Amino acid sequence: MSNLIGNHFRVLIYGQSHAPSIGAVIEGIPAGFTPDWDKVHVFMARRAPGGKATSTARREADLPEILSGFNERGETCGAPLAMRIVNGDTRSQDYAKLRDVPRPGHADYPANVKFDGANDIRGGGQFSGRLTAPLCFAGALAMQLLEKEGIRIRAHIKQIENVQDADLDPVHPDLDAIREGELTVVNPEAGDRMRQAILSAQSDGDSVGGIIECFAAGLPAGLGDPMFDGVENRLAKAIFGVPAVRGVEFGAGFAAAAMRGSEHNDAYRIRDDKVVTDTNRHGGVLGGITTGMPLIVRVAVKPTPSIGREQASVSLSKHENEILAVKGRHDPCIVPRAVPCIEAAVAVTLYDLISERSCQ
Amino acid sequence: MSNLIGNHFRVLIYGQSHAPSIGAVIEGIPAGFTPDWDKVHVFMARRAPGGKATSTARREADLPEILSGFNERGETCGAPLAMRIVNGDTRSQDYAKLRDVPRPGHADYPANVKFDGANDIRGGGQFSGRLTAPLCFAGALAMQLLEKEGIRIRAHIKQIENVQDADLDPVHPDLDAIREGELTVVNPEAGDRMRQAILSAQSDGDSVGGIIECFAAGLPAGLGDPMFDGVENRLAKAIFGVPAVRGVEFGAGFAAAAMRGSEHNDAYRIRDDKVVTDTNRHGGVLGGITTGMPLIVRVAVKPTPSIGREQASVSLSKHENEILAVKGRHDPCIVPRAVPCIEAAVAVTLYDLISERSCQ
Amino acid sequence: MSNLIGNHFRVLIYGQSHAPSIGAVIEGIPAGFTPDWDKVHVFMARRAPGGKATSTARREADLPEILSGFNERGETCGAPLAMRIVNGDTRSQDYAKLRDVPRPGHADYPANVKFDGANDIRGGGQFSGRLTAPLCFAGALAMQLLEKEGIRIRAHIKQIENVQDADLDPVHPDLDAIREGELTVVNPEAGDRMRQAILSAQSDGDSVGGIIECFAAGLPAGLGDPMFDGVENRLAKAIFGVPAVRGVEFGAGFAAAAMRGSEHNDAYRIRDDKVVTDTNRHGGVLGGITTGMPLIVRVAVKPTPSIGREQASVSLSKHENEILAVKGRHDPCIVPRAVPCIEAAVAVTLYDLISERSCQ
Amino acid sequence: MSNLIGNHFRVLIYGQSHAPSIGAVIEGIPAGFTPDWDKVHVFMARRAPGGKATSTARREADLPEILSGFNERGETCGAPLAMRIVNGDTRSQDYAKLRDVPRPGHADYPANVKFDGANDIRGGGQFSGRLTAPLCFAGALAMQLLEKEGIRIRAHIKQIENVQDADLDPVHPDLDAIREGELTVVNPEAGDRMRQAILSAQSDGDSVGGIIECFAAGLPAGLGDPMFDGVENRLAKAIFGVPAVRGVEFGAGFAAAAMRGSEHNDAYRIRDDKVVTDTNRHGGVLGGITTGMPLIVRVAVKPTPSIGREQASVSLSKHENEILAVKGRHDPCIVPRAVPCIEAAVAVTLYDLISERSCQ
Repeated sequence: MSNLIGNHFRVLIYGQSHAPSIGAVIEGIPAGFTPDWDKVHVFMARRAPGGKATSTARREADLPEILSGFNERGETCGAPLAMRIVNGDTRSQDYAKLRDVPRPGHADYPANVKFDGANDIRGGGQFSGRLTAPLCFAGALAMQLLEKEGIRIRAHIKQIENVQDADLDPVHPDLDAIREGELTVVNPEAGDRMRQAILSAQSDGDSVGGIIECFAAGLPAGLGDPMFDGVENRLAKAIFGVPAVRGVEFGAGFAAAAMRGSEHNDAYRIRDDKVVTDTNRHGGVLGGITTGMPLIVRVAVKPTPSIGREQASVSLSKHENEILAVKGRHDPCIVPRAVPCIEAAVAVTLYDLISERSCQ
Repeated sequence: MSNLIGNHFRVLIYGQSHAPSIGAVIEGIPAGFTPDWDKVHVFMARRAPGGKATSTARREADLPEILSGFNERGETCGAPLAMRIVNGDTRSQDYAKLRDVPRPGHADYPANVKFDGANDIRGGGQFSGRLTAPLCFAGALAMQLLEKEGIRIRAHIKQIENVQDADLDPVHPDLDAIREGELTVVNPEAGDRMRQAILSAQSDGDSVGGIIECFAAGLPAGLGDPMFDGVENRLAKAIFGVPAVRGVEFGAGFAAAAMRGSEHNDAYRIRDDKVVTDTNRHGGVLGGITTGMPLIVRVAVKPTPSIGREQASVSLSKHENEILAVKGRHDPCIVPRAVPCIEAAVAVTLYDLISERSCQ
Repeated sequence: MSNLIGNHFRVLIYGQSHAPSIGAVIEGIPAGFTPDWDKVHVFMARRAPGGKATSTARREADLPEILSGFNERGETCGAPLAMRIVNGDTRSQDYAKLRDVPRPGHADYPANVKFDGANDIRGGGQFSGRLTAPLCFAGALAMQLLEKEGIRIRAHIKQIENVQDADLDPVHPDLDAIREGELTVVNPEAGDRMRQAILSAQSDGDSVGGIIECFAAGLPAGLGDPMFDGVENRLAKAIFGVPAVRGVEFGAGFAAAAMRGSEHNDAYRIRDDKVVTDTNRHGGVLGGITTGMPLIVRVAVKPTPSIGREQASVSLSKHENEILAVKGRHDPCIVPRAVPCIEAAVAVTLYDLISERSCQ
Repeated sequence: MSNLIGNHFRVLIYGQSHAPSIGAVIEGIPAGFTPDWDKVHVFMARRAPGGKATSTARREADLPEILSGFNERGETCGAPLAMRIVNGDTRSQDYAKLRDVPRPGHADYPANVKFDGANDIRGGGQFSGRLTAPLCFAGALAMQLLEKEGIRIRAHIKQIENVQDADLDPVHPDLDAIREGELTVVNPEAGDRMRQAILSAQSDGDSVGGIIECFAAGLPAGLGDPMFDGVENRLAKAIFGVPAVRGVEFGAGFAAAAMRGSEHNDAYRIRDDKVVTDTNRHGGVLGGITTGMPLIVRVAVKPTPSIGREQASVSLSKHENEILAVKGRHDPCIVPRAVPCIEAAVAVTLYDLISERSCQ
C-alpha cells in the first residue's frame, strides 16, 4: 500500500485535505501500552499551524479521535490502533478551475494524469501537507516507545534560504541545546535571521526552502539490514513521504564526495569499555546497520510551491497557456512545521527497527 | 526480504563475496521476452574491474549463468528467472584476525554485532560491492524492457573530489553527450582531471569520493504513487542499496533549500500540444509521481573505505585499541564502477513502475 | 499487517466489538468509480442480525460512514477509501470475570497468552464476528467492480447439521436458483429443515454448524499465479479470515481423495469456439490459475461456540477448574449470516486478481 | 512474489522441471546455525522417487548444492541461503505437440492463457511436482530449528482411495507410531491395502488420490495472528502451494458442520498446572492463534492427473477436439511422496511463526 510504512511497526495513513477525515491505522504496537496522551497532543501541536507568525492562519484543531486499538483499561490491546482527525475548516471553491489549471510545483498535473482527472483537487487532496498530522500522531507514539529503550530523536532547522544554524557535535550532540520555538534552532540569533528571511520572502509574495537536520541518540549497534532494507533505505522511504522533501543524506552526506578516505573514515576506539568512533562522518550507519553512534540525517525541503505571485501554467482542457494566481493564505516557508514531521518519520522507522531486532 | 526490491518487477539478490556464488532471482518479467544477451554482457562489463587503470586488478569473469526462467525457445516463460555468478578468484586469509579488528568505514563492526560474530567476513561478505553484479544483470534486463517503452537511462560522474563534470541541459538532456570510457563523463577534460585526482589519492595510499548524476528520458507522466511509495521513495530505497551511497537528491535537491519558490517552481507550458515545463528544478517528479519531464537524481558516493594507510581500530576480543593495515589491492575510487550500478538501480525501479502502471 | 488482505485491491480491517468504531481502509480501487450505495447497504444488510428468527436480536445499525477516498463529485479519487461503523449498542459487563475464565471454542485463551492479558475481551474484541461488517463493505464494492467484468459471485448454505441443500450444476450453475431468505438456499424445503435444526439446537441451549458453497461465474481463464499466490492460496487466506471457518475445499475437494484420475480429470472440449470442460471437478482452478470454468469453493463453519449450556473451563488467575455459563443472546447458528461474508471474501480476492491481470 | 512464502522465515522457490536448475533462496535463518546435513538429505530422500514400487522410476539425484549463506566455519552468516538442485535427467520431446494439446487436470491450459503461450511446457514447467524438492530442503532446515524449540511435525497417509489409516489420539498423538516406509502410515495393514489400491489403479492405467493428516506437537500457546494472517491462513497458503492439493481442514474440519456446539467445543482444564483441553476438535488453533494443543491439519490430494488412458482434450491451434495419450511413466499416486512435502510446508510456516513470536 503506497500509504503504508514499516515492516513490524506499520503505519497506514489515509485521507485528503477536504475529505471528511484524515487518519491512520497502526499495527505492531506492543499490547499493554498506555500512551501519555498529553505528550501526543504537545507533539502534534508542534506541526499545527496558527500559533506562529510565520505560518498560515488556517486553524486546525487536529485533535486525534481514537477509533480502535484499546481495551477497557486504556491499554493497547494488540488490535490495530485506528484514529481519525475530522476535517473541519474547509471551504468550497471553484473546483472546475482548480482542476483545469495545475499549480506549478504541486502534484496537480501528475495526479490528474495518474487518476485520469478524478483526483481530489480540493486543498491538494491526498498530497496535502495535512496528511502529516496522522504521521505525527504515529511518530509521537513511536517516540514514547523509543524512550523506553533510551532512544531520543530531535531535529533542528539547519538552514533557511542562506541562513545557517549552529552545528551540534556529531559525536556527542547536546539535543537539549535545540530550542523549541517559532523556529526550532540551536542558535537563537540564527533563528531571528531565518525569521527575517521568511518574512522578507512573504512580503515579496514569495516563499523559501531550507534544510532540517535530525539526530537520534541512544541507538544500539546492530539495528537494520543489508542492501535494500537498511537504515538509510527505510529512513529515506519514510522521509520522502513528507511533502516537499527533495534530498536526504546521512553523516557527511554529499560533502563526502569531496573527501578522501583517510578523512571520511571514522576510526574505532574503546571508550568506557564500548566500541565507539572518535568522529562521526558515517552518521551512525554503515552497510545499512547502526553502529551505536548518533544517527545523523539531513533533509532538503523545497520552498513552498504556493506563492502569491502570478505564475505561468496551462489550461488542461483548452491546451493553452494560462496565467495562474494561487489564492488563499499559505505558509511562506514550510520548514518550521516540517521539523516534527521529520522527527516523526524518523521515529516511526527507528521503532520499526527496534521492533524487529528480536526476531532474527 | 532485505535483499528484495520492487513490487511487480521484483529482484532478490543473494550471495557473499567469497560464497560459492552470487546471483539474483527475478520475478515479474513479462513472458515471451527474449533478452539481447550481448547487451547484458556489455552492460555488466561496465562495472567489472580489471580493464581500467583506476580500478582494482582483481579479475572477475562475472559471467551470468541462467538457472531458470526460460522455455525451450529461449523466451522468458513466466517463472522466476534465477541466475548465478560463480565466485572464482577467492583466496584464503587469516579470517580470525579479520573478525577481530573491524575496518573503519566498512560494515564489519555493525555486522558483527547484528549477526553475533557469525557474519561472513571474507571479502566483505554480503556487504561486498560484488553484490552489485547481479543488480547490474537485473538492470540490464530492465533497460531492454524500458527501451521498448521509449525510456532511456544514462548516468555520468558529476564530481570526483573537487573536480566537476559539465552540466547537461535538465530539460533536453543530450544523453549521447555522455561518453563511456575509463570515466563516464560529458567533458573529457574534466575526466582527465578526475583521473588525476584518483591517481593522486592512490599514490598517497588514500581514496576519493564523488557524485553520480543519473537521467531518465522518455518517461510518461503519471507513474508512481503518493506518500511512501512515490518515485523518490522507491528510487532512494534502491539506490541506498548500492554500497557507499550517502545521499540522494532529486532535481534541484539540496540547492532548493536556498531558493525561493518563484525560482524553484517550474512553470507549465504547452509545447507540441503537450504539457511540459520550461525549466526542470523538480527533476521530473512531483508528489511522488512523474510529470513526463526528464528524471534527474544525484547520488553522493563516499571515498572507498579500504585505504593503504594504517588506521586506528580496536580488537573486539581484547577490547583494546589496535592499529589496522588493510591489505590487498583496492579501488582508490569506486565512483567509476558505481555508474552502471546507479543506472541499474534506477532501471529496476522505473521498470517496476512501468509494470504496475496498468494495474490501478 | 495481519488484518490486511490483497496485493492490488487491498483491504485493511480494524476495530473491536466494543471499540468506538470498526472499519476498513481500502486501496487499489480504480479512480473515477461511483459506487451504487444502495447496493452496498443491501449487501451489508444480509449479514446484519436482527431481522431473522434464527439470529441474535442485538441490533446493529452498521451504517458505513465514509472517511476518505472520494472527490467532490462522489467518485473515488485514487486515495485510500477509509470508512467506519460506529459501535453503538455495547453494554458494560464484569470484564474481570470474562478475562479470567476463557470461553471454550473462542479465542479468549490464546489471545490472553499472545497479548499477555491486555487483549480486548469485550464482546470478543478483535475476534468478534462484527469485524466481518467492514469485510462485507469491501466485498460489496468488489462485487460491483467485478460485475463490470461480467463476473458474478453467489453462495448458498450447502449444509446445516445433517440437512443438505440441493446441488447446483457445477458446469452451468444457475445462480438465480439461489434464493435469498432467512436461509439462503436452492431448495426451500431443505431450508425449512435447516431452520428446524437450528431452532432445535437453540431450544437445547446448543448450536449447530454447516457448510457454505460459493460459486463465481464469468471468470476469464488465466487469472492467478503458481505456487503460493494461486487462486486457492489467496481464497483460503481470505476465507480463513472469517471467524469459525475450519476447512476450505475447491471443486471435488476432499471427495477427490476417493476418486481415480480418470474420474476426477475434466476432459477439455471446444464449445462455441471456446475451450471448456464437460465436467467441473477441478472447480475452475488448476495449478493456481483459473480455467474459465465456474469457481467452486466450499467452506466448513463450526457450530457457534457460545452456547447456553454450562461448560467446563478454568480460572486463569487461580489455575483451577471452573464452570462457565456464557450469558447474553447468541446466534444458535452463524452459517446464515456467514453466507455474505464468504461471498465478500471471495469477491475481494477475485477483484484483486482481476486488478493485477494487466500488470504481468 | 508468487513463489515466496513466509514473513520472517522466508522461502523463495525457483525453477522449472527442465530448467538448468531448481532451487530456493531462504532469508531469516538465525545467524550461527550449523545444519545437520545428513538429516536434510534423509528428509529430502523421503520425497525423491525411485526407491518405491508405487512411484515413478525417473531418477533424481536431487542433491542440494549450496550457493550462499554460510561463513567459513559452515555456519549460517545472516545472508540469504541460496541453493540449487541441478536438473539432470531430462529428455527432449515433441514440445510443439505438448503445447498444443493440454493435458486434463494439469495447468497446461490455464498457464498457456496466462503466459500467452510462452509458458515452459517441458515436464510441467514451473508447475511440476519437482518444485517441491526445494520446499523440502527448506522444510528440513525449519524442522531442525523447530526441534530446538521442542516442536515436532509428523504426517501420515490418512486415506488412499477408500482405505483409511488408523487414527492417532488428537490430544496425545503418538508421533512415533507413524512408521516411515513405502507408505507412511500408523497401521501397516492399512498400508498394505493402500498399496493394493495404488497398484490396482496402476494396472488399470489409472491413478488414485488420498488424504494426508499432519500433526505438530510441542507448540506453545499464543503463536499466530487474528484475521488474515492466522495460523490457518498461513498454513493454507503454504499447503495449497503443494501441487494437487484440493482441500485443507483443521481439527474437526468439515465434520464440524454436522456437530453441535456442545459437541465441538473443547472444555478447558488445568493439568500439571497448565491450561489444556480434554478433547481437540479445534486442532490446536482458535481465532488464528495456537492454544498449545497439538496442531492437526488434513489435506486432500487429488489423483495424479497423468494417467495411461487416453483422454479427451483439444488442439489449441486448430480449436478442435482431440484425443490425448500422456506418455512416460508417472506416479499412480502422489500421496506417498506428498507426505514430506506437507510436513515441509507446515514446518516452514510454523518456524516463521516462531521467528516472529518475539517481535510483537
